[in-house]
Amino acid sequence: MGKKIVIIGGVAAGPKAACHCKRLLPEADITILDQDSLISYGGCGIPYYVSGDVSDEEELRKTSFHMTRDATFFQDAKGVKVRTQTRALAIDRQKKCVEVENVVSGARDSVPYDKLVIATGSQPFVLPIPGADLDGVYTISDLHKAIAIKSRLARGEVGRAVVIGGGAIGLEMAEAFADLWGAETSVIEFMPQVLPRIIDAPFAAMLQHHMQKHGVQIYTGEGALSIEADGNGKACRVVTPKRTIDTDIVVMSAGVRPRTQLAKEAGLLVSPLGIVVNNRLQTSDPDIYAAGDCIETTNLITGKKFFAPMGSLANREGRVVGDNLAGIHSTFNGVVGSFVMKAFESCIGATGLSLETARAEGFEADASISAPSDRAHFFPTESKMPMQLVFDRKSRRVLGVQAFGAANDAVLARINAAAALIGKGGTIDDFSLLEMAYAPPFATAIDALNAAANVADNMACGRQRNVAIQDFLDWIAAPSSRPDWLALDLRHPKEVEPFAQKFAELWLGIPYNEIRRRHNELPGDKTLIIICDAGTRSYEIQVFLDSLGRKNSLVLGGGFNVISRLGVDWWPKK
Amino acid sequence: MGKKIVIIGGVAAGPKAACHCKRLLPEADITILDQDSLISYGGCGIPYYVSGDVSDEEELRKTSFHMTRDATFFQDAKGVKVRTQTRALAIDRQKKCVEVENVVSGARDSVPYDKLVIATGSQPFVLPIPGADLDGVYTISDLHKAIAIKSRLARGEVGRAVVIGGGAIGLEMAEAFADLWGAETSVIEFMPQVLPRIIDAPFAAMLQHHMQKHGVQIYTGEGALSIEADGNGKACRVVTPKRTIDTDIVVMSAGVRPRTQLAKEAGLLVSPLGIVVNNRLQTSDPDIYAAGDCIETTNLITGKKFFAPMGSLANREGRVVGDNLAGIHSTFNGVVGSFVMKAFESCIGATGLSLETARAEGFEADASISAPSDRAHFFPTESKMPMQLVFDRKSRRVLGVQAFGAANDAVLARINAAAALIGKGGTIDDFSLLEMAYAPPFATAIDALNAAANVADNMACGRQRNVAIQDFLDWIAAPSSRPDWLALDLRHPKEVEPFAQKFAELWLGIPYNEIRRRHNELPGDKTLIIICDAGTRSYEIQVFLDSLGRKNSLVLGGGFNVISRLGVDWWPKK
Repeated sequence: MGKKIVIIGGVAAGPKAACHCKRLLPEADITILDQDSLISYGGCGIPYYVSGDVSDEEELRKTSFHMTRDATFFQDAKGVKVRTQTRALAIDRQKKCVEVENVVSGARDSVPYDKLVIATGSQPFVLPIPGADLDGVYTISDLHKAIAIKSRLARGEVGRAVVIGGGAIGLEMAEAFADLWGAETSVIEFMPQVLPRIIDAPFAAMLQHHMQKHGVQIYTGEGALSIEADGNGKACRVVTPKRTIDTDIVVMSAGVRPRTQLAKEAGLLVSPLGIVVNNRLQTSDPDIYAAGDCIETTNLITGKKFFAPMGSLANREGRVVGDNLAGIHSTFNGVVGSFVMKAFESCIGATGLSLETARAEGFEADASISAPSDRAHFFPTESKMPMQLVFDRKSRRVLGVQAFGAANDAVLARINAAAALIGKGGTIDDFSLLEMAYAPPFATAIDALNAAANVADNMACGRQRNVAIQDFLDWIAAPSSRPDWLALDLRHPKEVEPFAQKFAELWLGIPYNEIRRRHNELPGDKTLIIICDAGTRSYEIQVFLDSLGRKNSLVLGGGFNVISRLGVDWWPKK
Repeated sequence: MGKKIVIIGGVAAGPKAACHCKRLLPEADITILDQDSLISYGGCGIPYYVSGDVSDEEELRKTSFHMTRDATFFQDAKGVKVRTQTRALAIDRQKKCVEVENVVSGARDSVPYDKLVIATGSQPFVLPIPGADLDGVYTISDLHKAIAIKSRLARGEVGRAVVIGGGAIGLEMAEAFADLWGAETSVIEFMPQVLPRIIDAPFAAMLQHHMQKHGVQIYTGEGALSIEADGNGKACRVVTPKRTIDTDIVVMSAGVRPRTQLAKEAGLLVSPLGIVVNNRLQTSDPDIYAAGDCIETTNLITGKKFFAPMGSLANREGRVVGDNLAGIHSTFNGVVGSFVMKAFESCIGATGLSLETARAEGFEADASISAPSDRAHFFPTESKMPMQLVFDRKSRRVLGVQAFGAANDAVLARINAAAALIGKGGTIDDFSLLEMAYAPPFATAIDALNAAANVADNMACGRQRNVAIQDFLDWIAAPSSRPDWLALDLRHPKEVEPFAQKFAELWLGIPYNEIRRRHNELPGDKTLIIICDAGTRSYEIQVFLDSLGRKNSLVLGGGFNVISRLGVDWWPKK
C-alpha cells in the first residue's frame, strides 16, 4: 500500500477528498473516521426529508444511482476504508497518528497517517437559555435528529412548532412543519429581520410576508428567553420578551460554529472563524489539510476572512484537498457567498455582499432596486422578480445581488451568473452587457440582471436619485413628519384611485404618458416621490423633470412591485 | 431643440438607442424612421403568438405596464418622434440627411441629421427554389406575416405544416403548429442536424428525438427542392430529394442576413457579416452609428468577426449607441454567443463555441459530456440535464457549454453562469470552483456545471479517455467492424439484462461496486467500453483498471442518460 491518508469526518468534504484522492492515487491507503454511524449524507436535504418531499432518510445517503453510501459501499466501490462510530480524540503530530475511540465499545487505538485531513464540520450553536436541553428541543445537527423529528410528526405529535432562528435552515424547517404537516408554526429571530447579514431588509420583509401568507408566524427582533416544560418534562412553551408560544416541538437553529477543538488541541492555528488554512487548504502543519465547515475562508470581495459553512463549498474544497494530497497543485482562493432558498411558492437568492454588509465593510456602497419580469412579460408563466444590485460608487464594482422570485430556477439563473462575474471583479458595465441567454419562455430581451445593472448605472452616474424604501414607509406611516413630500403616481388612473382616496392631498396621479404635457400641474414646493410599478417609468420622469430644472424628485426604486410584497398594513382595501 | 438624431429602424436596437439617448440628452431632437406600420415589437415572441401562448399580437407591442408602443406612445411618453410607413431610400452623408418615402402615399422628403443610427435589422433568407413565392409560403420577418399565419390557423386552414429550416425559429414555429394547433408538422433541415453550428450532434439528436416524440417529423440532411401549388396557386407540397410532403402552409426559416444595402449604398464599410463598426458601434462614418442585426460583431472567444442576430444583443447594443450619442464613452466589445430555446417539455441552451466550431477554429478542443441532475437527486422534481463543456486542451480555457434539460430555467442557470465566465476567459479550474448557489430544490451540492468542469479536468489531465458517442453508435450498429470491443456495463444487473441478452458476447455486466474484486473476469484482449448511467462510475472504474495496468478502456461519457435520449433504433424492448 502507498501513502497512509487519514480523514477525520465523513459527511461532505471528507468523503469528497477521500474518493477524489483515491482516484488520483490508487495505491493510497485512505481511511475515513467518523463518530457517527451514518455518513456521507446530504445534510441540506434534511428539511425536505422532514417535510416529506423525501420519503426516507436513506434517500439522503444514496448516490444518484441508488446505492447507499455506507462503510461497505466506500470499501467496495471506492476502495476507501471507513470507520464509523469512531471518534477522533486527539492528533499526535509528532508521532503522526490520530488517537481514536469506538463510541460503542469504548475501545481505543491509534491510527497512523502520512497526511491527515480534518473535516470535522460545524456544530449548531445552542442558545444558553433555560430549557434548551429539554426533551422535544432539537438542533438540526445530524440525521438522527432529523429522524427523531420526523417520527414525532409521523406519530401526529406535532400540531404546533416553534423554530428559534430565522436563518436558512430555520426557515426551511418552518416550511417543512407548516406546509406538508400543517403544523401551526412560529419562527423567532433575535435580529430585526430574517436571514440577517445574507439579504437586506426589504428582501427579508418580502420573504417574511410571503411565509406569513402561508401560515408561518414570524417574530423578528425577539429572542427566546426560555423554553418551558410540561408535567412530563417535555418542551411545551417558548418565552420571548413579548409573548409565550405554546408548542409541541422546538427546533433551535441559531447558527453553527466551526468544530475546531481537535485542531486547536493539536496546536494548529485556529481563529474564531475556523481552522486557518492556506489556499491549498493546508493548515499550519503542512501534513495536515482541512476542508469544509470547520475552516475559515477568504471572502473574495472584501479580502477578509470569514466563515462560510455550506455543503457545496465543502465539496469543492474536498476536491482541492484531494488534488493536493495526490501532489497536484490545486488552490481554493475563496468564496463570493452564494445562497438560494425555496420558501413555499417563492425563491430567494443572494450572492456577494448585502448593502448593509458592504457599507459596514467600508465600501461607498449603494444598491439599485428593481422589479423585472423573470421572462417575457407577454409569456403566460411570467412573474415579477424583485432584484437588488449592490455596487461601489467609487469603483463601480458590483458587490452583490439579491433576488426574490417564483419557486423556480429563475432566481438561480441570475444569482449564478452574478456570482461568476463578481468573482472576477465585474463592474456595473460588465453586468449591463453580460450575455444572458434570451428566449421569451426564459427571460426578457434585456435580462433582469442587465436591467438591474442599468439602474445601478443610472444611479452611479447621478441620473437616478432614489428614496430609501424605509424612508418612504416612515413617511406613509406618519406623513406629518415629512410635510414637503408628495407622491406622484404614474400608473393608470384606476390603479391610482384607492391610494389617492386614502392619502388625499399627499397623493397625485398623472399617467406616465401625460407628464410631458401636464407637468405644470405639479406643485413646485414639494419633493416628489415618483412611483410606478417597477421604477422604470419613475426614472424616466425624474430625468424629464430634471431637464426642466425641477430637481427635487426621488424615485421609489422597484415601485409597487416591491412595496406590495412587503406586507404593509396601510394598503388600501380593494 | 438640441442635436438632431435620426434612427433608421424601429424594432429593437433603434427604439432602445432613441429612448436611452433621449433620457441622457433631453434636449435632443430624435426621430425614428420605419417602413412598417408596426414598431417596437418582441419579434422573438412570434412563435408564442402563433402557438396561442400569447393571445393577441398587440401583447408583443406592449410595455410590461400594458401600453402599446406605437408612434403616439413614443411621442407622448418618451419624447421621441416616430415616422412609421416611412422608408429610408438613401443616406446623403455630405448633406447629412436621409431621403425618405412614405410607403402609402409615395411622398418623399429629406430628414436632416447631426447623428444617424442605422438599425435596419436582418431579413430572412429566401431559398431560391421554385414555389418560394407561392401563396401560403411565409417567412418570419415581421408581425404582419405572423398575423397572417395565425389567421390561417384560427380559420382551421392548417392541418399540416412544413417548416424549412431547423434553426431556432424554425423549431419554435414547428412546436407552435404541432403543440396547440395539433397540426401534422414536418421540419426539413439541409444540414445533417438541427441547430447546426449552435450545438453539437449529440445534443441536436436529443432535441430532435424529443420533438419527434411530440409529433414533429424532422428530416435532416435534406434540402427543399421546390414548393408545389394546388389548382388555386396555393402551396400544397414540399419536395425534397427523398420525399414529397403534403402541407397546408410552409414556413421558410432558412436563416437571416444583415440588412445592409442602405449602408452599402451610402459608401459605409460593410462586410458580408454586416455593417462594420468599432467598439463604440460607430460605422466608418463617425457621425453614423449602427446596432442590432445589421452589424457584424466580434466573437469574444475567437476574436474573429461574426454575425449574431439576436434581440437581446440588439437591445444591449442600442443602449451603448444611446450612451455614445450622448457623449458618454461606452463600448460593446463583442459576443460570447448565448442561446436558449424551449422545445415542448425540454429546454436546450448553449453558450460559446460548439466542439465542431472550436475545432474548425483551430483550437485543440475536446468536450466533456455528462448527465448530471438539475437538482438534488432526492428532490421530487429532479431530472437529468445532459451537459457538454467544450475546452481547449492546451490552455484549459473553457470555450463553450451546452445543456439539454427540462422546460424550466435550470439550463439557463448554467448557461448564463458559463457565459459570464467564458466572457472573462475562464478556465476549467474556474468552472470547477465556480460558486453555484446550492439548495436541494435548485441544484446539487456539486453543481452540474462544476461537475462538467471536473470531467473536463479529468480528460485534460489524461485521466479520463472517452469513446466518441458516434463511434459507439457505429459499433452497436455493426459490431463486426470492431471485433476488439466489449461493453462493460456497471449498472444494476436488472438494468443490464436486456442489453446482455440482445448483444450477447459483446456485453458484460459487472456491478460498479463489485469490480474491485471481480476484475479478473474481464477479458484481457478487448478494449472495454465502460458504461453506466451518467459516466461518473465508468470514470472511476477506468481509473481503477488503469491502476492495474489495464489501460485499454474507454468511457462512454454521459452514459445511458445520454444514449437513451438519442432515439436510437436498437434499444432493447422492455
